[in-house]
Amino acid sequence: MQFFWQPYLPYNAVSCRYSEIGTKGRNRRFFVERLTTALHRRLAKWFGNPRFVLEEGRIFMMPEGRDAVLTPEQLSALRAEMPGLPGIASVSPGFLLEPELPALETCILETFPKVYEAFVANFPAAERTYSMRVNRSVKTFPMRSAELERHFAEKLLPGCGLTLDLRNANLCIEVDIRAKRAFVDFERIEGPGGLPTGSAGGVLALLSGGFDSPVACYEMMRRGCNVDFITFHSSPYTPPAAITKVCGIVRKLNEFQKRGRFVAVNLLPVQKAIRDACEDRHRTVLYRRCMTRLATVVARHFEDQALVTGDNLGQVASQTLANLDVISRATPMLILRPLLTYDKLDIMRSAERIGTAELSLEKVPDSCTVFAPQNPATNAHLDAILADEAKLNLQELLRECLRNTVIMNALNYNEHPFVELLEQELPL
Amino acid sequence: MQFFWQPYLPYNAVSCRYSEIGTKGRNRRFFVERLTTALHRRLAKWFGNPRFVLEEGRIFMMPEGRDAVLTPEQLSALRAEMPGLPGIASVSPGFLLEPELPALETCILETFPKVYEAFVANFPAAERTYSMRVNRSVKTFPMRSAELERHFAEKLLPGCGLTLDLRNANLCIEVDIRAKRAFVDFERIEGPGGLPTGSAGGVLALLSGGFDSPVACYEMMRRGCNVDFITFHSSPYTPPAAITKVCGIVRKLNEFQKRGRFVAVNLLPVQKAIRDACEDRHRTVLYRRCMTRLATVVARHFEDQALVTGDNLGQVASQTLANLDVISRATPMLILRPLLTYDKLDIMRSAERIGTAELSLEKVPDSCTVFAPQNPATNAHLDAILADEAKLNLQELLRECLRNTVIMNALNYNEHPFVELLEQELPL
Repeated sequence: MQFFWQPYLPYNAVSCRYSEIGTKGRNRRFFVERLTTALHRRLAKWFGNPRFVLEEGRIFMMPEGRDAVLTPEQLSALRAEMPGLPGIASVSPGFLLEPELPALETCILETFPKVYEAFVANFPAAERTYSMRVNRSVKTFPMRSAELERHFAEKLLPGCGLTLDLRNANLCIEVDIRAKRAFVDFERIEGPGGLPTGSAGGVLALLSGGFDSPVACYEMMRRGCNVDFITFHSSPYTPPAAITKVCGIVRKLNEFQKRGRFVAVNLLPVQKAIRDACEDRHRTVLYRRCMTRLATVVARHFEDQALVTGDNLGQVASQTLANLDVISRATPMLILRPLLTYDKLDIMRSAERIGTAELSLEKVPDSCTVFAPQNPATNAHLDAILADEAKLNLQELLRECLRNTVIMNALNYNEHPFVELLEQELPL
Repeated sequence: MQFFWQPYLPYNAVSCRYSEIGTKGRNRRFFVERLTTALHRRLAKWFGNPRFVLEEGRIFMMPEGRDAVLTPEQLSALRAEMPGLPGIASVSPGFLLEPELPALETCILETFPKVYEAFVANFPAAERTYSMRVNRSVKTFPMRSAELERHFAEKLLPGCGLTLDLRNANLCIEVDIRAKRAFVDFERIEGPGGLPTGSAGGVLALLSGGFDSPVACYEMMRRGCNVDFITFHSSPYTPPAAITKVCGIVRKLNEFQKRGRFVAVNLLPVQKAIRDACEDRHRTVLYRRCMTRLATVVARHFEDQALVTGDNLGQVASQTLANLDVISRATPMLILRPLLTYDKLDIMRSAERIGTAELSLEKVPDSCTVFAPQNPATNAHLDAILADEAKLNLQELLRECLRNTVIMNALNYNEHPFVELLEQELPL
């Protein structure tokens, strides 16, 4: 959690900085528009229809209404929501004003006493470090950045007991001077970086109730993807709560993007057949190959371009190179594994940051544990797996699973999307 | 960089903590042995043949020779090398002694004045925070952790001007009490976590001179993989330095693992044919598909289980889902992309930490830029790509590339590994 000590001030705008999308050349406009849409959607609850002004490298957002200022609720919303919004490098609530020295002086000199008061209340004497950072993107402004910094230091610092620290000041005044406007702020709310969702196409994520797969989804969103979700249950061997738990996770994840579709599949027919016909130790891999196939069918139907999993190399004994390989050969589709080399600790930290950790904590039996073998194969051989699978009528089994598939967040019950798929040969 | 202020002390051992491998159940022994081997190899230059004692959750390393103590050079080597060694959570140089109160008292009370002196010299009064962290893994020791912490606080703190801070103390004394020995230390050298290399199987990484692919290699090592390397040049369109640059990177990366093989392939025949026969805008994707095929042949020969790339979603315009998909369809082999959702800034930081950044900085034309199109396709269609590829005699072209392939770090010139491959049909 970031620590904010700044007082409530009547800010009239928010300056949003984005990171990599600034480097996108011809695509920049497209990315900036996506980011603006994402900001709008994410903040609608508190901001309604704010006004956006797009400038080189910045999006300025103004609250609705003539001469409106940010409410304390809007300020809290920014601090709570912006650390999770993909594409945001940082945002600052602040003052948008004329790019003239008198306007800057009025703003800074009138505001500073309040800021100073809060600062002193929050930092012991040894940590009262100060800096001013001026960014002058046009050369028409008559003073250079260093001059301006000195100008204000001379007015603000005497008798204040602040130490100048250009690198890690606890109190930093930022002044951003542009051709038609200037912006002054006293705080930065850090974002997660990355690219705005919706800029990189659709993917379908295999979501369980665990800690990893939700983080994998979020990582894909953070690189611009729109994520649809598929989960597997084994009703009645798994309780209804197995699905509601994942529902909660999907709802959380959908806060970060245009609502992704959420599909729940009953894998039980496949699991029973595998239990009865195949080697015990192959079960985990065989389940996963069937999940991958079902996900492929759904992804094609949704026109998603890749599958996403929370796979992590070596985290559990069955997540070996050999097993990943054998599972990925069940589909011609691209499988993306954003967490492949993450440490568990980093995954847990991300899950806490995005808010899925507390949902994943809940203990509910899931599909993976149904008929789970004592000693799962850690080094599956493709030939042996294929021989085992040959004992199954996969076409029929997968069709049966699809018949028991529901789009959980569809608004229309008739909208069973997979009926037509049942007519054709599944691509296995 | 971590900041170390601790004085030189006659330490007699190093305590090595590992992270996830502690959770590996039946495999733990295997992982601990791999980690011990990695420690031995990494530190051989300074430590020769140290003695290792494996304890629950710890590896203790003692310098060679009866009653030997760590030299200043050995201490520097630990601080320089351990932050990069996969599998290490942290290490501490310190004192291995009898698990008895008198031994602990002698050690701590005799050592503390020197530590205190260095501490005061390095920290201003406001930052002189202290804590003691006792870990008592057996209950046979007569005092409980909290008692012991209080016992020493009463002896050490009076008149010292130190503030107790249990969470973020700048001076932390750690006491680790086990059945047969105890360990006392004053510093932690943080490692990168992950799993020891060599515990997860072999992979072949497509290495360029850029910043990303070396970091991808390191991430795979950090999860236990042994990495072989393949690079592509376009001699004489690219200069010899294109290869020597990658050689330097390979040498750096090999410091982290048992030496991986390094293969250099001349891609020019393929590139010329593609330039002459195919659509300009398809070039990038067609090159990559051919690299993937050549890498597949080499990986099979090396018995590596997957290919690794530095691919990153959306970092450049051509790294789209569609292009990744079309490229991955050139091989049935598993392709791993550890940096898929990383931000460029994080990649650069990693590159600096592992020491490849300064090598990648060097500006040398590389294979990817030869005949590079003005407007590479950002959304390649498989059908169009396949139609374009049908104009090429791939078998013949890839064979020609393999004929111009060298294992750069082979010790024997006759050891051309791919001659036999040229006799058979390549799996395309």
